[in-house]
Amino acid sequence: MKAWLFTLGTEVVTGRVVNTNAAYLGRRLTLLGFEVLGNVSLVDDVELIASWLSLVLSGRPALVVTTGGLGPTYDDVTLEAVARAAGRRLVLNEHALEMVRRRYEERGLPLTPERVKMAYLPEGGEAIPNPVGTAPGCWLRHGETIVVSLPGVPSELEAMWEGYVEPRLRKVAPLRHIAERLFTVVGVPESSAAAVVKRLLHRYPSIYVKTHPKGHETRGPVLLVYVQASASSREEAENAADIAAKELAAELENLGGSVTWGGSLQ
Amino acid sequence: MKAWLFTLGTEVVTGRVVNTNAAYLGRRLTLLGFEVLGNVSLVDDVELIASWLSLVLSGRPALVVTTGGLGPTYDDVTLEAVARAAGRRLVLNEHALEMVRRRYEERGLPLTPERVKMAYLPEGGEAIPNPVGTAPGCWLRHGETIVVSLPGVPSELEAMWEGYVEPRLRKVAPLRHIAERLFTVVGVPESSAAAVVKRLLHRYPSIYVKTHPKGHETRGPVLLVYVQASASSREEAENAADIAAKELAAELENLGGSVTWGGSLQ
Repeated sequence: MKAWLFTLGTEVVTGRVVNTNAAYLGRRLTLLGFEVLGNVSLVDDVELIASWLSLVLSGRPALVVTTGGLGPTYDDVTLEAVARAAGRRLVLNEHALEMVRRRYEERGLPLTPERVKMAYLPEGGEAIPNPVGTAPGCWLRHGETIVVSLPGVPSELEAMWEGYVEPRLRKVAPLRHIAERLFTVVGVPESSAAAVVKRLLHRYPSIYVKTHPKGHETRGPVLLVYVQASASSREEAENAADIAAKELAAELENLGGSVTWGGSLQ
Repeated sequence: MKAWLFTLGTEVVTGRVVNTNAAYLGRRLTLLGFEVLGNVSLVDDVELIASWLSLVLSGRPALVVTTGGLGPTYDDVTLEAVARAAGRRLVLNEHALEMVRRRYEERGLPLTPERVKMAYLPEGGEAIPNPVGTAPGCWLRHGETIVVSLPGVPSELEAMWEGYVEPRLRKVAPLRHIAERLFTVVGVPESSAAAVVKRLLHRYPSIYVKTHPKGHETRGPVLLVYVQASASSREEAENAADIAAKELAAELENLGGSVTWGGSLQ
């Protein structure tokens, strides 16, 4: 089940913030069993966003997640772009309006046009409650694709993901289990490891391996090696990861490497 | 002059690393005067990367920068994708081969096929020296577009950017100067600031404003406000940023906000 991310906002594209949302969602979706193919960050331009969303939707992925652009300001255009890409109108959603109204009423604040704007969703969309901030998210079914739109503020995004989106996605996600192994090899250049990894992947097509150079290729090579197995049961995934990672580690030791299990990619 | 980023690699898309390269390049290009429209991260799939690159190249941007996928392993496919998208063959580049050869000779290591692979560039491409690692980068002119390909390891990317790419881009970059102002407003919800910002942007079309909510919209709003001016001289940009930022701050104070100048977006 293929998935795409759209992490939207001029501040992301121009590098004024680091895109931690893309990493958070990419990881969560992978562990849920989705195959994430890409992440697209675009400036706050409704036509640009709509055209790229249309392109991705035409490939009929199982899931598209957007972040950012749901707030009250002029450059919050994500739901308008989703509506255009999905061929829907943007309509006032009563549930969303109730969520927004409650937030401002708590503080004795009136519903201005900028605040009401946050309650407009693509027709057929369902409002996703935002327990941290003000703007609701949107869950939209478009043909075979689920389009989930969430705010860009990480605390809001993560609360909505964990409290609402992920539990609901688990009901439709593939029953894939992911198992991971990580080890460090000192003394083998990445270019020597490459041939060994290639042969391993030919033997085990459901395994994913990535080598991350941490030292210097020729003057003191250190590789962090990540092995991932995906299978329909947890046990099968864990077994597959074990077998592949141990074989790979043994072959890298044969090349003169010194292996330590564990480590962190960050 | 429009620019696009392609920060490539399955480890980026699946969230095993945070994409700091996108932020670094987005920022550097913006400050050089380029208008960065988007950043695309894709898994290590040569057809997928080539098709998205083709699409972006068809819009004839001034610049496309790719990161990642230049190394010796089976999944390092970026230059093959650039070659396909630009309708070129991938050919052994003598300068690149000399750079690679020198790196391995320093350590008494032979040139294996995996190592030679790093010296294949799209036909017409120029090798960019890598002072930190092994894989050379590539500078390719394709019609009106410059395509720059750099490694994904941040220390290599940054050394090559600062030592080679940026000095060379300065010769073709627009003579745009960027000036920035940052201030914090306590006590004004983003939805109240929105109308003020909208009016300011109508008065000053060359100004860019982004409000970043840092507190809670209704229970204690804190906004970090970023104001950017772009102009053909530094003085003009600084003046424009000063005027717009001071006007905006004054209007937010009129709404009951308390303004502090400075701050950081990270």
